[in-house]
Amino acid sequence: MKPSHIEHIGLAVRNLEESIRYWEDVFGLECYRVEEVADQKVRTAFFKIGDTKIELLEPTDDDGPVARFIEKKGEGVHHIAFAVDDVAAALQSVQQKGVDLIDVQPRPGAEGLNIAFLHPKSTHGVLTELCSKLEKEK
Amino acid sequence: MKPSHIEHIGLAVRNLEESIRYWEDVFGLECYRVEEVADQKVRTAFFKIGDTKIELLEPTDDDGPVARFIEKKGEGVHHIAFAVDDVAAALQSVQQKGVDLIDVQPRPGAEGLNIAFLHPKSTHGVLTELCSKLEKEK
Repeated sequence: MKPSHIEHIGLAVRNLEESIRYWEDVFGLECYRVEEVADQKVRTAFFKIGDTKIELLEPTDDDGPVARFIEKKGEGVHHIAFAVDDVAAALQSVQQKGVDLIDVQPRPGAEGLNIAFLHPKSTHGVLTELCSKLEKEK
Repeated sequence: MKPSHIEHIGLAVRNLEESIRYWEDVFGLECYRVEEVADQKVRTAFFKIGDTKIELLEPTDDDGPVARFIEKKGEGVHHIAFAVDDVAAALQSVQQKGVDLIDVQPRPGAEGLNIAFLHPKSTHGVLTELCSKLEKEK
């Protein structure tokens, strides 16, 4: 498994509109998409920068993973997502090398990607996402 | 101020050699440089991925900023560094927009870059570095 690039960096934020304004006004980036991901109990906003993206994550439910992250650690970097060719094959590869998985199979994520998370306990504290485009979109 | 790309993502690690092995063995990345930054009390290791880099940061002193980060939060994402054309001009721009600075003037960082940090209290919890090549290397 060798990722081609960092697909995005996920940032946990309390208020999506306020954070969109920050990245637009201070950094001159442009939010090109806002999307609710019901499965993850978040609203997301995306900005392109170089060959990667910033993904803002605002909790839509106090019981979701990002709400719990913010309650425990405050706003900040939530995860790093690596672009791979085939998430299922990459999961098998990292598992064989002793990495614990949060998702044992790929599932649908924001922007129509196939995604899976690795457990931060076996990735030196970095909540790590692997993602790839769906086969038909490659 | 508009950064061109994410120059690197800084990850705080307890043991540089162990973490280098993780990123090489599990992710297939290649460590191309190890450098001590005495000023920051860290040893660093770099990996290229797409147009950005992963920078591992191992504390060399219990009293340094990365040692304190790990003591408080454990291993994980320490900062995100954005490539800008001119750090001094970018600092002035973000300060005018109300962002608090850790470094009011650029200073030398790893890999011969000119760097400065913004305060995470005014960047929605993301310890943010701005960096640019020195004038003679552009």
